[in-house]
Amino acid sequence: MADERYEQGLEVLKEMTGGKEFPPLEAIHSFYPGFAEFIVSNGFADIYSRPGLDIKQRELITLSSLITQGAVDQLDFHIHAALNVGLSPKEIVELVLHCSAYAGFPKAIAALGVVMRIFKEREVQI
Amino acid sequence: MADERYEQGLEVLKEMTGGKEFPPLEAIHSFYPGFAEFIVSNGFADIYSRPGLDIKQRELITLSSLITQGAVDQLDFHIHAALNVGLSPKEIVELVLHCSAYAGFPKAIAALGVVMRIFKEREVQI
Amino acid sequence: MADERYEQGLEVLKEMTGGKEFPPLEAIHSFYPGFAEFIVSNGFADIYSRPGLDIKQRELITLSSLITQGAVDQLDFHIHAALNVGLSPKEIVELVLHCSAYAGFPKAIAALGVVMRIFKEREVQI
Amino acid sequence: MADERYEQGLEVLKEMTGGKEFPPLEAIHSFYPGFAEFIVSNGFADIYSRPGLDIKQRELITLSSLITQGAVDQLDFHIHAALNVGLSPKEIVELVLHCSAYAGFPKAIAALGVVMRIFKEREVQI
Amino acid sequence: MADERYEQGLEVLKEMTGGKEFPPLEAIHSFYPGFAEFIVSNGFADIYSRPGLDIKQRELITLSSLITQGAVDQLDFHIHAALNVGLSPKEIVELVLHCSAYAGFPKAIAALGVVMRIFKEREVQI
Amino acid sequence: MADERYEQGLEVLKEMTGGKEFPPLEAIHSFYPGFAEFIVSNGFADIYSRPGLDIKQRELITLSSLITQGAVDQLDFHIHAALNVGLSPKEIVELVLHCSAYAGFPKAIAALGVVMRIFKEREVQI
Repeated sequence: MADERYEQGLEVLKEMTGGKEFPPLEAIHSFYPGFAEFIVSNGFADIYSRPGLDIKQRELITLSSLITQGAVDQLDFHIHAALNVGLSPKEIVELVLHCSAYAGFPKAIAALGVVMRIFKEREVQI
Repeated sequence: MADERYEQGLEVLKEMTGGKEFPPLEAIHSFYPGFAEFIVSNGFADIYSRPGLDIKQRELITLSSLITQGAVDQLDFHIHAALNVGLSPKEIVELVLHCSAYAGFPKAIAALGVVMRIFKEREVQI
Repeated sequence: MADERYEQGLEVLKEMTGGKEFPPLEAIHSFYPGFAEFIVSNGFADIYSRPGLDIKQRELITLSSLITQGAVDQLDFHIHAALNVGLSPKEIVELVLHCSAYAGFPKAIAALGVVMRIFKEREVQI
Repeated sequence: MADERYEQGLEVLKEMTGGKEFPPLEAIHSFYPGFAEFIVSNGFADIYSRPGLDIKQRELITLSSLITQGAVDQLDFHIHAALNVGLSPKEIVELVLHCSAYAGFPKAIAALGVVMRIFKEREVQI
Repeated sequence: MADERYEQGLEVLKEMTGGKEFPPLEAIHSFYPGFAEFIVSNGFADIYSRPGLDIKQRELITLSSLITQGAVDQLDFHIHAALNVGLSPKEIVELVLHCSAYAGFPKAIAALGVVMRIFKEREVQI
Repeated sequence: MADERYEQGLEVLKEMTGGKEFPPLEAIHSFYPGFAEFIVSNGFADIYSRPGLDIKQRELITLSSLITQGAVDQLDFHIHAALNVGLSPKEIVELVLHCSAYAGFPKAIAALGVVMRIFKEREVQI
């Protein structure tokens, strides 16, 4: 059943990456398998597979939490994920602007930098 | 035009309170009018009146930011607001649970306490 | 197997409470069973049952994290737990003092207030 | 020389309290003398006695840090101190409003509540 | 009147940059004009143009908030701004040291690194 | 006696670096001697030389605080220090995993990246 959770987590991850491989997870698995299993089972499977909120809502919540805690390093993955699961570019930018009121301008502006870079890389039009 | 923003902000506030008065704002206005105007115009009007995200999405983002920064005191208003603008009780509880993975269990459990109290007061069924 | 994790988590919880009931968990279970299961399985079982660190070390880490994030509400449970699993009163006070350098005096002094209250209630001598 | 630092810290503290006793420090001293000494010597003496910034500037910095980290419990002492060392009521309220842009509205509004209560208690006019 | 706020915000920004262009703002404007307008009007104009605190006091408050929340990326702009509006190098370094007591050593030491780099670039003597 | 504290702090620092020089401290000393003295005396001497907790316990507490506050820049020094004072590689990785529950996955995963890099550089086997 642990394996079931792991498989379920990998499914979630695949949806977020748009079907691509995710090398950082493999690196973690080589380093310390229990950590990769914990991330996949307890993070992706046990959270994102729950009912009650769809994956687009879950990404809004995740992005807001990341911006608020200043977790700029982890924004990259979730801005890609947000686009991959169907949030519109405008929704993502407005989310960042909204966070400036709740988390302060510094957090929002740091996040905006990541959004601008990723939208440019992916040639996303707002 | 400042007045226009203020009126617009009061409209947003009214939607959030479900049409009720909001005495804390009046207290702030008596204390220092400029602060009340700033909250209403720069907080409610300039943020919640923007296009691109609907008010339910904006409450998801706000609640996630509040939980992540441990702003327990401000949760009260926004859990009421979330219910008033149409988020379902289940969406709110699942949002809190989701945040436990991103903001940690202590923040989520503190928020859960507020949710439980408000749902009881309003006799909300999940 | 989910049940196995739940049982394991309850064992951990029991060690932390010194064998006493823990009514807040029951209240959460009545409110939304999935949240109680998540806390017990993903919080207590999947974290505290892991090898590599003993429970006293885990409480040092937990207390430091709670103090650093200003999670004063959650300190109560874990200061009791720290005493119940065998950390000495002096270790706990010195941990709080240590945190003043890393998390700042305000966080440490807020935590000290909780420690002082609990030590008085339990008639703990440092 | 440790005593010299302690005496110097008590002088700073006296300036902040407006010459009044400060019972919380005595309570900490009874509980664990080393913690009270650490707060007085390393907090008050080694910080506030330094040259380069006057005590009014130091209180601006302290209040901004407290508001930003959500240390509402510690605001009480430092809002009193800010008034006692000569910051004007208007400077204090404007500081809180300024912080809403950098630390977000929730932190600023929580701080405003404390300011409003203390100004009322002391019958301060802005 | 929105334009008036925007013009006012650009004036504030100009004072902070010492009269220089500020390319990041232009980049944001090209990306999503509403975000640039929001930063200039709601951030710079509506905050820094207020009475009650002068711009040097406002930079003390801003720097303290940035250091406390670990917003290292945004420190660059505001350390330059602090020097440009007339805070002395010694006031800036003492502010960072002061923050070590309230926000903890890690935040202060991270900020000190930015200060050291900028002072070197500008050949500032303390 | 200030010199005594400084010498004591340098001893602590030496234990943490495994006897190596620590160039960042010298750079700070050249920049502003009072800041280097403050870090060494108030940080290392007055904290790590205290009784009640051994240096391995103090590193557990420090690492947990750094991870929780997202102080990734300062993790480098303290992961090296943790290894140098005798924490096992497994204890360090399990500490990071433990923090994912209390500080959230984003903070833990950011810390894990630093741990993986340092363990690779030092050819540490878990």
